[in-house]
Amino acid sequence: MTRTLIHDVAAHSGETITIKGWLHKKRLLGGLNFITLRDRTGLAQSLIQDKDELEKLRGLHIGTVLSLTGMVVADERAPGGAELHDVKVEVLVPVTDEPPIEIDKPLEHKSENLDTLFEHRVIGLRNLQEAGVFKVQAAIKEAARQYLASQDFTEFNSPKLLPGATEGGAEVFKLDYFGKEATLAQSAQFYKQIMVGVFERAYEINPTYRAELSATTRHMTEFIQLDVEMGFVDFDELLNTTGGLLSSVASRVWDTNETELKKWNAQPVKLPEIIPRLALQEVHELYSKATGEDTRGEKDMRPDEERWVTEYAKKNLDSEAVFIVDWPASEMKFYHKKSESDPSLVERADLIFRGVEIATVSMRENRYDVLLQQLKDIAGGDPEADGFRYYLQAFRYGLPAHGGFGMGLERLTQKIIGLKNVKEATLFPRDINRLTP
Amino acid sequence: MTRTLIHDVAAHSGETITIKGWLHKKRLLGGLNFITLRDRTGLAQSLIQDKDELEKLRGLHIGTVLSLTGMVVADERAPGGAELHDVKVEVLVPVTDEPPIEIDKPLEHKSENLDTLFEHRVIGLRNLQEAGVFKVQAAIKEAARQYLASQDFTEFNSPKLLPGATEGGAEVFKLDYFGKEATLAQSAQFYKQIMVGVFERAYEINPTYRAELSATTRHMTEFIQLDVEMGFVDFDELLNTTGGLLSSVASRVWDTNETELKKWNAQPVKLPEIIPRLALQEVHELYSKATGEDTRGEKDMRPDEERWVTEYAKKNLDSEAVFIVDWPASEMKFYHKKSESDPSLVERADLIFRGVEIATVSMRENRYDVLLQQLKDIAGGDPEADGFRYYLQAFRYGLPAHGGFGMGLERLTQKIIGLKNVKEATLFPRDINRLTP
Repeated sequence: MTRTLIHDVAAHSGETITIKGWLHKKRLLGGLNFITLRDRTGLAQSLIQDKDELEKLRGLHIGTVLSLTGMVVADERAPGGAELHDVKVEVLVPVTDEPPIEIDKPLEHKSENLDTLFEHRVIGLRNLQEAGVFKVQAAIKEAARQYLASQDFTEFNSPKLLPGATEGGAEVFKLDYFGKEATLAQSAQFYKQIMVGVFERAYEINPTYRAELSATTRHMTEFIQLDVEMGFVDFDELLNTTGGLLSSVASRVWDTNETELKKWNAQPVKLPEIIPRLALQEVHELYSKATGEDTRGEKDMRPDEERWVTEYAKKNLDSEAVFIVDWPASEMKFYHKKSESDPSLVERADLIFRGVEIATVSMRENRYDVLLQQLKDIAGGDPEADGFRYYLQAFRYGLPAHGGFGMGLERLTQKIIGLKNVKEATLFPRDINRLTP
Repeated sequence: MTRTLIHDVAAHSGETITIKGWLHKKRLLGGLNFITLRDRTGLAQSLIQDKDELEKLRGLHIGTVLSLTGMVVADERAPGGAELHDVKVEVLVPVTDEPPIEIDKPLEHKSENLDTLFEHRVIGLRNLQEAGVFKVQAAIKEAARQYLASQDFTEFNSPKLLPGATEGGAEVFKLDYFGKEATLAQSAQFYKQIMVGVFERAYEINPTYRAELSATTRHMTEFIQLDVEMGFVDFDELLNTTGGLLSSVASRVWDTNETELKKWNAQPVKLPEIIPRLALQEVHELYSKATGEDTRGEKDMRPDEERWVTEYAKKNLDSEAVFIVDWPASEMKFYHKKSESDPSLVERADLIFRGVEIATVSMRENRYDVLLQQLKDIAGGDPEADGFRYYLQAFRYGLPAHGGFGMGLERLTQKIIGLKNVKEATLFPRDINRLTP
């Protein structure tokens, strides 16, 4: 018999239908024997009255793949408003071992349990609440693509196998490439800038690699970055596009995935039309005054300042996100652009959302000669090295004023849902201690 | 003055507007000095009458970034039906060196020129015809996602850093992972099967790595694979979904990108509603009869058979694509499923499209015990090894009948456009000889 999907069951009241899926729950009470089946569209309850049918499930565990044929009976107490009666059971794939992790109840996400969670990820993801995280993540990607398409961006794919370290830093994975050394891309930075010369507005949702030696709640060795770059813009337009993306994603994901979000007690995101901007020094001063801890000499945001400024912005600026602007040029990357009005500052912003930085935004230096000088002075880079030579061509042959941002998909998912650790928003997280499953 | 995009110029007839972009062409004829500007929306012609304005362009080359302000005059001979007169020129970014590759004329794609093409890719992509390939590629991805979403598939991201070789083969890149050995994913095979237990229907558009020692027109070390997997299906439904994806993509891309496709003289794809199926042995026999070359003992398709069967299917089956079915079980991978009606065959198909295999489709063995045996017998794999252990959990705890396919995005792009080499459909190709740009 043709398979009926579970979300369509109630529409077949009075008919005999077949549903297929995984055994999700058994409640064998002698007289009233209920089982719950899970398919990709939901859960359905079935009443098994015949003893021979019940016997087929003896010794079988949650996860057993079943085909159930029965009569649909409307019942408000059942999930979906209907259940199957007089059920014939066909065991498609028996599971004879008890699963190592619970599938039918919310899993514990305490920090001391996370390792167990990830160790059993292959099965734990079948838990509807866990799967919901990645339904939301898929929706975030789709919403981001929709927003970017509406703004005339073109998607591209850049290589992850590179001839050498680019942005610098020791955190780079190296591999043997037919006798030469190759590195894994730490970001699509150079390629997205190159693509400004081609499409003006380009983006990529791509894996990114950092050989992070620390095992914190924030760091992974592999993550998905939303890399966006746009030409013929100034810093103000760039920040508005970045903020527009966050607003658009945060609102659409509630339209498409309210069910999953509510299971995690996620809160709708509150953002004003224009995300407010605060100067780094201003935040240091406000924070120092409020907490008594003096950060006025700092050249970066401290993690506790990121949390504090979120609360501050929520209370005073009616926004759960804030751009931190006016960063000191002394700390800039070689491809950043100094502010024309004050060369001691750089046109960079960090987007702080719900307590963490989810994106770094900056205008790029687009003048070939100035960039060449900055490469030498700031990164100590050799313009003739394979890692820089091709990148520099884009500037030598004309790139307009441009800027962009990188936004971590897992961190965005984490914060939209309200998860504690970015790894909870990663299907199969990778860090210094974990390369499996 | 606010920037007007070039595709909007004609709508401003009689007004003074500003356009911004790259100098695409100069025709300085003394009396009539025309320049063409390129932005992300097209090309616009401008007439420069004032000598001082013209003087600003002296010594500047194609690629110079300009802002042009002038009066819009309708003119049918101009691209877009209008041009700018009385133009004031502002040089935003001067280009003082002549570009190493032509931007305003179609680039040569002869096999002896490809290395030059890729060496100058950073600038060559600004050529509108070249950029068009990647506009089409972006549209193919979008069309594939739309089709898969319409069929209830959920997108996921699997890790590319793996604990060991999985599908086997020597073509695997190895890297040092904090003192342990890691490998780069050769495919999302195991993860997409694992995701059947979570979403039933799952897909990923993801980079894939093969340490291919051969430098042919078909092989790259990094490419983008469309990995699709679906549960609760049989081989027939699986083939129909695979064919449905190809048909849907091939038709939508003509709706969205006819301009780019026509520039390459691409031909619309002819496919019947159901893509025909031919048995491997049948193809060998037809081919042997038609060509006199005996391939009846072969266990695979020869490249010239792939080309031949395309012509055969076009003529006799009215289709530019054909599934080759009934593959010998002697050649199967350990995760393939043998045909129940004839265990000497495996439920696998190769999708041949315009002369090459663009996808391998197969049903997977979903019975834990049988899979375990096949892993040992066929792959010589250790079920306790990190590369297999977690994968096998998915089966031990219940996976339904399922199957899927991997389709190469670059090869699909190549064939839809009609390019000779798959590398022409790759932004920055990687092979044994090339790790740049």
